[in-house]
Amino acid sequence: MNGVNHCCVMTKINTLVMEDRAAPPGPGPYDVVVVPKMTGLCGSDMHVFLEGRAGESLFSDPLVLGHECAGVVAQVGSNVKTLKVGDRVALEPGAACLRCENCKSGDYNQCGDFKFAAADGFDGTLQGYYTLPADIAYKLPDNVSLAEGALMEPLAVAVMSVSKVAKIGHNQNVAIFGAGPVGLLTMAVAKALGARRILAIDVNASRLEFAKQYVGAETHLAIPMNPGEAREDYSKRHGKYIMEKFGLGERGLEAIDLVVECSGAEVCVQTGIWLVKRRGKFVQVGAGPAHNLIPMSIFVNKEVTMIGSLRYGPGCYPMAIDLVSRGLVDLKPLHTHTFPFKDAILAFETTKKAMGPDGKPAIKVMIEGPI
Amino acid sequence: MNGVNHCCVMTKINTLVMEDRAAPPGPGPYDVVVVPKMTGLCGSDMHVFLEGRAGESLFSDPLVLGHECAGVVAQVGSNVKTLKVGDRVALEPGAACLRCENCKSGDYNQCGDFKFAAADGFDGTLQGYYTLPADIAYKLPDNVSLAEGALMEPLAVAVMSVSKVAKIGHNQNVAIFGAGPVGLLTMAVAKALGARRILAIDVNASRLEFAKQYVGAETHLAIPMNPGEAREDYSKRHGKYIMEKFGLGERGLEAIDLVVECSGAEVCVQTGIWLVKRRGKFVQVGAGPAHNLIPMSIFVNKEVTMIGSLRYGPGCYPMAIDLVSRGLVDLKPLHTHTFPFKDAILAFETTKKAMGPDGKPAIKVMIEGPI
Amino acid sequence: MNGVNHCCVMTKINTLVMEDRAAPPGPGPYDVVVVPKMTGLCGSDMHVFLEGRAGESLFSDPLVLGHECAGVVAQVGSNVKTLKVGDRVALEPGAACLRCENCKSGDYNQCGDFKFAAADGFDGTLQGYYTLPADIAYKLPDNVSLAEGALMEPLAVAVMSVSKVAKIGHNQNVAIFGAGPVGLLTMAVAKALGARRILAIDVNASRLEFAKQYVGAETHLAIPMNPGEAREDYSKRHGKYIMEKFGLGERGLEAIDLVVECSGAEVCVQTGIWLVKRRGKFVQVGAGPAHNLIPMSIFVNKEVTMIGSLRYGPGCYPMAIDLVSRGLVDLKPLHTHTFPFKDAILAFETTKKAMGPDGKPAIKVMIEGPI
Amino acid sequence: MNGVNHCCVMTKINTLVMEDRAAPPGPGPYDVVVVPKMTGLCGSDMHVFLEGRAGESLFSDPLVLGHECAGVVAQVGSNVKTLKVGDRVALEPGAACLRCENCKSGDYNQCGDFKFAAADGFDGTLQGYYTLPADIAYKLPDNVSLAEGALMEPLAVAVMSVSKVAKIGHNQNVAIFGAGPVGLLTMAVAKALGARRILAIDVNASRLEFAKQYVGAETHLAIPMNPGEAREDYSKRHGKYIMEKFGLGERGLEAIDLVVECSGAEVCVQTGIWLVKRRGKFVQVGAGPAHNLIPMSIFVNKEVTMIGSLRYGPGCYPMAIDLVSRGLVDLKPLHTHTFPFKDAILAFETTKKAMGPDGKPAIKVMIEGPI
Repeated sequence: MNGVNHCCVMTKINTLVMEDRAAPPGPGPYDVVVVPKMTGLCGSDMHVFLEGRAGESLFSDPLVLGHECAGVVAQVGSNVKTLKVGDRVALEPGAACLRCENCKSGDYNQCGDFKFAAADGFDGTLQGYYTLPADIAYKLPDNVSLAEGALMEPLAVAVMSVSKVAKIGHNQNVAIFGAGPVGLLTMAVAKALGARRILAIDVNASRLEFAKQYVGAETHLAIPMNPGEAREDYSKRHGKYIMEKFGLGERGLEAIDLVVECSGAEVCVQTGIWLVKRRGKFVQVGAGPAHNLIPMSIFVNKEVTMIGSLRYGPGCYPMAIDLVSRGLVDLKPLHTHTFPFKDAILAFETTKKAMGPDGKPAIKVMIEGPI
Repeated sequence: MNGVNHCCVMTKINTLVMEDRAAPPGPGPYDVVVVPKMTGLCGSDMHVFLEGRAGESLFSDPLVLGHECAGVVAQVGSNVKTLKVGDRVALEPGAACLRCENCKSGDYNQCGDFKFAAADGFDGTLQGYYTLPADIAYKLPDNVSLAEGALMEPLAVAVMSVSKVAKIGHNQNVAIFGAGPVGLLTMAVAKALGARRILAIDVNASRLEFAKQYVGAETHLAIPMNPGEAREDYSKRHGKYIMEKFGLGERGLEAIDLVVECSGAEVCVQTGIWLVKRRGKFVQVGAGPAHNLIPMSIFVNKEVTMIGSLRYGPGCYPMAIDLVSRGLVDLKPLHTHTFPFKDAILAFETTKKAMGPDGKPAIKVMIEGPI
Repeated sequence: MNGVNHCCVMTKINTLVMEDRAAPPGPGPYDVVVVPKMTGLCGSDMHVFLEGRAGESLFSDPLVLGHECAGVVAQVGSNVKTLKVGDRVALEPGAACLRCENCKSGDYNQCGDFKFAAADGFDGTLQGYYTLPADIAYKLPDNVSLAEGALMEPLAVAVMSVSKVAKIGHNQNVAIFGAGPVGLLTMAVAKALGARRILAIDVNASRLEFAKQYVGAETHLAIPMNPGEAREDYSKRHGKYIMEKFGLGERGLEAIDLVVECSGAEVCVQTGIWLVKRRGKFVQVGAGPAHNLIPMSIFVNKEVTMIGSLRYGPGCYPMAIDLVSRGLVDLKPLHTHTFPFKDAILAFETTKKAMGPDGKPAIKVMIEGPI
Repeated sequence: MNGVNHCCVMTKINTLVMEDRAAPPGPGPYDVVVVPKMTGLCGSDMHVFLEGRAGESLFSDPLVLGHECAGVVAQVGSNVKTLKVGDRVALEPGAACLRCENCKSGDYNQCGDFKFAAADGFDGTLQGYYTLPADIAYKLPDNVSLAEGALMEPLAVAVMSVSKVAKIGHNQNVAIFGAGPVGLLTMAVAKALGARRILAIDVNASRLEFAKQYVGAETHLAIPMNPGEAREDYSKRHGKYIMEKFGLGERGLEAIDLVVECSGAEVCVQTGIWLVKRRGKFVQVGAGPAHNLIPMSIFVNKEVTMIGSLRYGPGCYPMAIDLVSRGLVDLKPLHTHTFPFKDAILAFETTKKAMGPDGKPAIKVMIEGPI
């Protein structure tokens, strides 16, 4: 292993500094050291970079950013039997304790002692060497590239919400709010798992066009709010409008069985509850305001089930990799930009520009590793 | 069958009239005619009586009120094999079509063609004869009285939420908001099904005292809101206060596995979400405002499951009757007043006085049948 | 309605007689009268015809045979809103009571008062008019033919086992024993619902070739038993042989998550239990000997779940029709022969010849209705 | 830590030798060293001792026996936060890898790299010091004794089968075959979790009398087989006999919802399948012959679910300890004999005598630790 570790460090809000640190010590018995080759940027990276926080996680300086990553194994711990030096791997960025009740029950993403890359003081993958437990470094098949490997992270988020949390049923109709990278991958997973109809809803027409091309989604550009209209009134009107437009009902094959909300917007949450069938499921993935007003009366009347979906759990990375390797999910169209490590700051700026209602569809910026 | 049918008819809001109608024709082949002997009043009766609506259901005049009822079978249809004249029965007040997708899938309370007593133009049980399908008239064991039979209706609501919707797990801790009749019966069912700890929360100290005596609940009198405090801030503070007070955590045996919200109050919904464990369940039973502000960020972070529970479905009445017959749920303490049919108006007035934060605990008023 | 009802009646074992009966009376309020246009024959028809019994069901003479049927609505009952005269419909041949505990819980195929066509004294569909409840006559989309409509019955069996009973998980590997019509349709449903690998096992090479062409199954022709080898020893050897041949393991993506046994043969049951992964599922569909020797020790050690699947339940016909209409299941290759009503006896003889290890793959014989 | 470790070593079949070994090195970072104080003997200990094997596990000499154990923490690893020296703990005897797919999915008892005490070459607890991961050493509440702590192992087997595998429903009727220690504890757990009726079936009248006193079970002494009667015919007759005797049916409150088979006997497996309701559950716990003949035709007709239950998984020990601590399961009546360490051989002989149809009910022999 090289004696120097090149790092891209966030020293304070909106500030990145390149820094050489000592290479890490060898791996523990169950760990591997990986050389990151490709790191993607996402919305929560931008929240940390621009605001110093993402959801419940606060920035503490200095911090190496990056958590959507694939690389090459450089060193393996003494008890590691599943990997060898040179293996190309996708990295799951959160290490759980494996020993607490949640971990042992199969809910490791709810571990009380979770260490997540580029959050809560744990350095991320924008560096020359990254050490992690071997059981969360997943070997990539030959037909999956390192750039695709880095995209396994948002794809695992989609696998989690659609497969593990929603447990999407057979032959079901799905409505997905938000057609950014996570929303699009959610559609891709829904399609790969046999969804019957996929309805994509967004405020951005070019993202919807992308969704149509990408997975054959039926698309709906959100209608405008009336002047002075309360958000909850708009949402009810919007929900009913969508149902009429697409010939949807409250039961059977013409109903929306599942809503996956990937935008975080309160009106989308509300509209989704109006849209979903009786006894239907609503899964919240998107991060938005701390509180949301929801139409509780119709929620109870229809006996909706609403579930929060956080990151990913057991089996999400393996399924994500398998879906890509088998050609059921195509990650290439989402990867739009690549920057060398030295231009990391440019990568952040490019991602920043792409956000918001006018952003380009499905833009995903990658930063190459320093070595 | 007597040629006259004495009815207690709501002719307009806040107005009851005694009226003699013709006795109903004989039962259809799968129906029975029952002589109602005991009808209990509940909050939604009061909403209809005083406001002309209950939840999504609107009053259309004139309407015979009453839906918590037990009586005696007077006539059986030609194809009925399960009942005979003279059988004492508890009446499930909602008749589903049995033929639609929801009915055939075991979700008959979500039937699209549901006929509910004393709602949507269907006369209720405050009359001399009441006709219903035999499969929703449940024979009472000898050790269960007709007054207890009338209380099967709110008990079935509790069975639905705790057993069918929440599917309460083994050895779990439950927090129940609201200690009115439905909340108390929810506690009773939770206890009968083996709940580990039962935490009762209300704004009324005497109701909580009743809950303590009734099911051994641990009780919490809601703390006051600070002047100018936003409801959602209060709820967060309240949730954390309760967790500390009762030594609760987010995982394992010290966590609240299930919240059942029976009050309908927005602050209770909010507090319940703060209280429930990671991956915990929250079931909404109480009817409240059309919209509720909920703490969505922590909801997603903890991956809570929230489900609406409406009325009762397959197996709820049988389980309710069995729990009472086997002595696992005691309905007698909830039955506090009985009025003869002619004094029905007095019964409504007594129930009205009992509502609200100063109301007597667990008051349940019964009206005897006209014959 | 025509005054005469032409019927194909089994008067005793191996004897069919054409008989004219009076047309049935008009339908009950929730019934429809259908003119059968296409009736398929299956293995259990042959068992009734040749042996006077099928599984638990005994022949009582005389009996109109036929239960895989589609036709045209000739008359609708007064309360029927879902169908009109002239509608083309697939007929679900079993009418449940809808009122018992099993029916109301969503398990109508376990109804205690089930009336199944061409069994237990209930006449089947080889006649000019067939009356049934409207809720089990399913309207066919324009792009689905009547012959395909008749094949919805075996397809519903496959939907039941794969979707409702096995609840096949996402991205799972399936092994299916038996490549006759039910086995092939089981493969087709597994594929339509997103199965990852489909392994078809049979003793008949041409059936396996059909399976390969039909759904892209990986195929395995059963290896021969050694002279004097006990069946259970053979099965263990066979199971391990298959695992090695196809690179299968006990866990993860390389494991068989689900076995669906459609042959009824004891050695297939045994081999399937050796094949399935730890905590895997095994669903028994095929009818075979009354008792089977199973490898219980490894069954417990792997904590296998074995479930019986009987006929079809709620939602099976709608999903079957939808999968065909959407082009996800192709029924046409299975339909190999059509006979006019008058040649019904020839149809039975043709089907008889097709059974057994030398039979042609996926042969399905249809008999046209008399009118 | 003392420099000498007194061990009770099985050197060959039916031979125990006392041996002093060096005390173990200090614990790894996540381990604790425990001084075993009480070790219970069970059937599989006897199988290893007398036959050199138990189920799939083969004896390899020499081996320290013992796996039902409680003791006192002597040393804690550097990363252990949940325990301290002097804590009284129940020991879960199987250590899983925590990193494989099964472990991470919440199925650690199906781990591919499981290390089980006194099996497969891993020494058991009949020694002065025993080292294990801290997450499987469970602190005992003050009101639970070390002898009760040792009994947590068979109680965890019962928790696994009734709660985790069978997921016993609310208010359900259970039939349990076998009234030895595991069967009795299975009844105790079923009762603690709210089973409605508990039916105990055995060939030993005194065990059944014990079951009646212990948990209020309804009891059935197996009827004798007729001369020349095939086992499967006997079982069918026996199943129907039991149903009639106890007024059981195939559906509803009068049906057996769940069978837990703890005897391992083939006729019990068969009888249980005849006994269980339509769509009922059958859980196999007992170890018996490698193969069992089961009534497959009725199994499919009733759509029974049969599941194997192996050892225990996440949450079993915590629930077992909690049920005892809260007084819901009483372990004291099962603990009948205690021997000092030096008399271990006498303990094995006593246990051996207690087995078989004439054995004393619920005999559980304990051996005290050497120090």
